[in-house]
Amino acid sequence: MRWQVFGRRRVYGSEWVELWLDDVEIPGVGRVEHHVLRMPRACATAVVTDERGRFLLLYRHRFITGRWGWELPAGWVEAGEEPAAAIAREVEEETGWRPGRVEPLTEYFALTGISDARFHAFHVTGCTYVGEPRDAAEATRVEWLPEAEVVELLTGGQVSDGATQAALSYYLGPHRLAGG
Amino acid sequence: MRWQVFGRRRVYGSEWVELWLDDVEIPGVGRVEHHVLRMPRACATAVVTDERGRFLLLYRHRFITGRWGWELPAGWVEAGEEPAAAIAREVEEETGWRPGRVEPLTEYFALTGISDARFHAFHVTGCTYVGEPRDAAEATRVEWLPEAEVVELLTGGQVSDGATQAALSYYLGPHRLAGG
Repeated sequence: MRWQVFGRRRVYGSEWVELWLDDVEIPGVGRVEHHVLRMPRACATAVVTDERGRFLLLYRHRFITGRWGWELPAGWVEAGEEPAAAIAREVEEETGWRPGRVEPLTEYFALTGISDARFHAFHVTGCTYVGEPRDAAEATRVEWLPEAEVVELLTGGQVSDGATQAALSYYLGPHRLAGG
Repeated sequence: MRWQVFGRRRVYGSEWVELWLDDVEIPGVGRVEHHVLRMPRACATAVVTDERGRFLLLYRHRFITGRWGWELPAGWVEAGEEPAAAIAREVEEETGWRPGRVEPLTEYFALTGISDARFHAFHVTGCTYVGEPRDAAEATRVEWLPEAEVVELLTGGQVSDGATQAALSYYLGPHRLAGG
């Protein structure tokens, strides 16, 4: 069942986010003005593991939600940049570890009901340490954690960042169940 | 490392989404105007399983992303409504199955870098069929699918909705690994 779009108008524009009102006919509901948050840049995240099966995580504060929590390295994909190149850059900037291998893990739209915000998640392995993180504003701590501890953090409410929950859960669940 | 917020101003308001510009000092970066999408309503989703371990999914089209895909039942939490009550209502409206038991599964912020958009995911069991979905605009098909097929859909790119990936992956990964 497709919703029909008759037109759209932009009510706010910026390089980070645009707000549009789309003129939409929803079957059984009628014609409405529907908010759409268009995000020109995608986001990239990475599940980073080492040869001992540990996970590289950052402990940080988010001013928007007021929460401290464990997160994956992540960042915006710049204009003209490949998502894989973006995440390799972000992992090194945020953690001081330079990725060896970068493989696609999964992709998704974070808020399909209201936005086209897109995430590319990768699995990164074979990292080498190149020094202190250059992007010091990101995290208070950068640590390699064993899987059992990561599962505890996830199920104990210590991971409030959706992108981190999504990629770690995908890696530990469907990816592994499918033999990945 | 905390970012300091000096003030904020709203540039767009509605009952669905508000756009704010926050005046923020980012350590090592400086003082910037940071976009924040404030969403007054949370979203609720549900992993719905039956006694045979099958999953209740909807096949639907999303006009914003232009994609067809499999999704969990989901919806906004109305003002004054408990998230558990919201998802019980949505599951019945969208699928025609009335929830028996509704248990919290996980919570997260979908876009912590730019928004306070919040999701509450539940595990719903013991459903009874009460008739055709009342909310016919939502889905083209409503089906109970076995776990192996759900894993195939997730790893085969048939689930582009982030909330669906997140909750199903969490259920199949960390939740199960923790003995849930």
